[in-house]
Amino acid sequence: MDPEFIDSLVVKNSTKIIFLIMDGLGGLPMGERDQTELEAAKTPNMDALASKSVCGLLDPVGYGVTPGSGPAHFALFGYDPIKNNIGRGILEAAGIDFPMTERDLLIRINFATIDKNGVVIDRRAGRIDNETNKRICGKLQDKIRKISDVEVIFEPVREHRALLALRRDRLREEIQETDPQKTGIPALPPKALIPEAEETSGILQKLIDKAKEVLSDEEKANMLLLRGYSTFRRYPYLSERFGLNALAIATYPMYRGIARLLGMVIGPQPDSLKGEIMALRENYGKYDFFFVHVKATDSRGEDGNFDAKVKVIEEVDSLVPMVTDLKPDVLVITGDHSTPAALASHSWHPLPVLLCSATARPDRVKRFGEGDCISGGLGRMPTVHLMGLALAHAGRLEKFGA
Amino acid sequence: MDPEFIDSLVVKNSTKIIFLIMDGLGGLPMGERDQTELEAAKTPNMDALASKSVCGLLDPVGYGVTPGSGPAHFALFGYDPIKNNIGRGILEAAGIDFPMTERDLLIRINFATIDKNGVVIDRRAGRIDNETNKRICGKLQDKIRKISDVEVIFEPVREHRALLALRRDRLREEIQETDPQKTGIPALPPKALIPEAEETSGILQKLIDKAKEVLSDEEKANMLLLRGYSTFRRYPYLSERFGLNALAIATYPMYRGIARLLGMVIGPQPDSLKGEIMALRENYGKYDFFFVHVKATDSRGEDGNFDAKVKVIEEVDSLVPMVTDLKPDVLVITGDHSTPAALASHSWHPLPVLLCSATARPDRVKRFGEGDCISGGLGRMPTVHLMGLALAHAGRLEKFGA
Repeated sequence: MDPEFIDSLVVKNSTKIIFLIMDGLGGLPMGERDQTELEAAKTPNMDALASKSVCGLLDPVGYGVTPGSGPAHFALFGYDPIKNNIGRGILEAAGIDFPMTERDLLIRINFATIDKNGVVIDRRAGRIDNETNKRICGKLQDKIRKISDVEVIFEPVREHRALLALRRDRLREEIQETDPQKTGIPALPPKALIPEAEETSGILQKLIDKAKEVLSDEEKANMLLLRGYSTFRRYPYLSERFGLNALAIATYPMYRGIARLLGMVIGPQPDSLKGEIMALRENYGKYDFFFVHVKATDSRGEDGNFDAKVKVIEEVDSLVPMVTDLKPDVLVITGDHSTPAALASHSWHPLPVLLCSATARPDRVKRFGEGDCISGGLGRMPTVHLMGLALAHAGRLEKFGA
Repeated sequence: MDPEFIDSLVVKNSTKIIFLIMDGLGGLPMGERDQTELEAAKTPNMDALASKSVCGLLDPVGYGVTPGSGPAHFALFGYDPIKNNIGRGILEAAGIDFPMTERDLLIRINFATIDKNGVVIDRRAGRIDNETNKRICGKLQDKIRKISDVEVIFEPVREHRALLALRRDRLREEIQETDPQKTGIPALPPKALIPEAEETSGILQKLIDKAKEVLSDEEKANMLLLRGYSTFRRYPYLSERFGLNALAIATYPMYRGIARLLGMVIGPQPDSLKGEIMALRENYGKYDFFFVHVKATDSRGEDGNFDAKVKVIEEVDSLVPMVTDLKPDVLVITGDHSTPAALASHSWHPLPVLLCSATARPDRVKRFGEGDCISGGLGRMPTVHLMGLALAHAGRLEKFGA
């Protein structure tokens, strides 16, 4: 079934749906342990919820595919993650609320350090602080406003990361990334990957040469590396596809960016888990779909810190009663993808999901974890169909056919 | 895999396949109960069968999609239910054995009652009896034989329902239904939904005006509401796709109608479950595929009567030995969709299936029910692939590729 098929069945009502998303939730046993992070965590609240929910395992993109945050979240919201693959440049721009236009080519900048031979010796410029980043972007913007007839915009993001927007019609995104992905070699050239991108490639080469000149007196950030070229296009909003008035609560800019691309209202930006749940509660009356994003599970997974990831999961579990207390019509708890501490990176493993609703047919899963969810009533399913299922359980899809 | 892929692999042999279909079989726990209707039912025969069968859960259309009877049955017979969505007008026509032509626009009529201001006060005209329906259709047919150059045919169905066929080339089905779906407001106009349907819209408006005039002296059925416009198209038959000589045994006209659309022979029309199984036995020598349709499971589900649905399932179970006694090469027992009494309507929940055959690899399912079938050997699968599986177990699909 095409995931967009459900759009034709949508009806509105006053039900409420909450997606509580622990980024990178799925895990693996690590070292001598025989349980995943979620299995090792003490999660009495989620276990009780699992007992009355329908559970399963989700494949964010497909068997064996490790998703980035973009595709993984698009799938969660019911957007085909392959057809709607979104460049990192757009994610970066969305995350800082940059006013994108359909004439923009958006690019992520990593400031880096090169030696006198042009060899990259630090791909993150010693993780310069936000103030330095701001200063450097200002300096570049002062000196570079146009390359040929292309408007150039620099915007700081955080630490060593910034956004570059080129604005003019007919710019192309099929360009080689210049980040060499390791130190000890020079940056790569912004080569055109298809003939139609030659002109854009030339503009980028000029821009890089100019920027190097401007940054030559910097100690750390004396070079920029370009990644995630993306021309902007607008996606249909959750309101347009599903009639949902959606609120996003996320502490990290990129996830707010994704939410904004899909037309969600961006809620308060608290800096703690509890703050996020409080924000959910305070705004519960005003929306009908809630995306609550927990970043720390993924961060601790990426750190390779099994025990710290367990702790984050346990903290989320302790907050679950503040969520169920709202009595949402549908509560989904899952992640966007797996980030096993054992791998210290995103992975392709399917991840556990529970869907709690009065119309959920309970299965025999009594504990929320990978091993138990295998035998859940949802089976193993593509993440992209989760939104349709949530809408059905909320009574928001009408019957198909006579 | 495209469900039509198997067509290229079909070979003929003398095996026999029975599909025993309990309409709306899938259920939910209701009230204080912790079992579904099927789980609560005592089904020793189906349980014994499940123990030596391969079991699983079926998704009729897709995650979250509640199917009507048309799509749900098309999927059962191996036809993509979305690509082959069929209008209610055609279903209605097929159910009364109306000889459709490819020049027909088929429409379901609901006779209704309007007050002197034209406001609909009863969408079913007090559910007039079949005799009144027949008389009224006769009266309409007497007065209305043509609108412009379009031939007009009225056929009674039952109670307040009738069939309207417009016959001429180039009629369009993209017309707004006139049933307002609630009382207290007038019928909607048969508006064209696309410019190409303007002419058909005009013809329908004239027809409605004329019919109102003819019905103006009726006490109850003084108006007609139009739904389910469908231009007829012929589907490939089961004989053409799978080389099957198929018999349908169904007590309800709509299901016979669907079977006829797919080229099945329509068998006897007994009025009891036992009568249906007797009909199966009497005709067993003459066909190689048998569709036996049990309507009452769905009806009791739609009534919201859990215990009555349980009883129907138990009655079917008691008849199972009369089926297995025939020693079919493949026996499939399942439903077309879920109709949980708890919801008193069709639903999107997957439903249990068992496939019994000498080549079925038994799984560990010992009881035929939703909770057990989750861990069956078929897993959770789209209904549309069930027919291919049945053909394979009947030795009717050859190897693909060298």
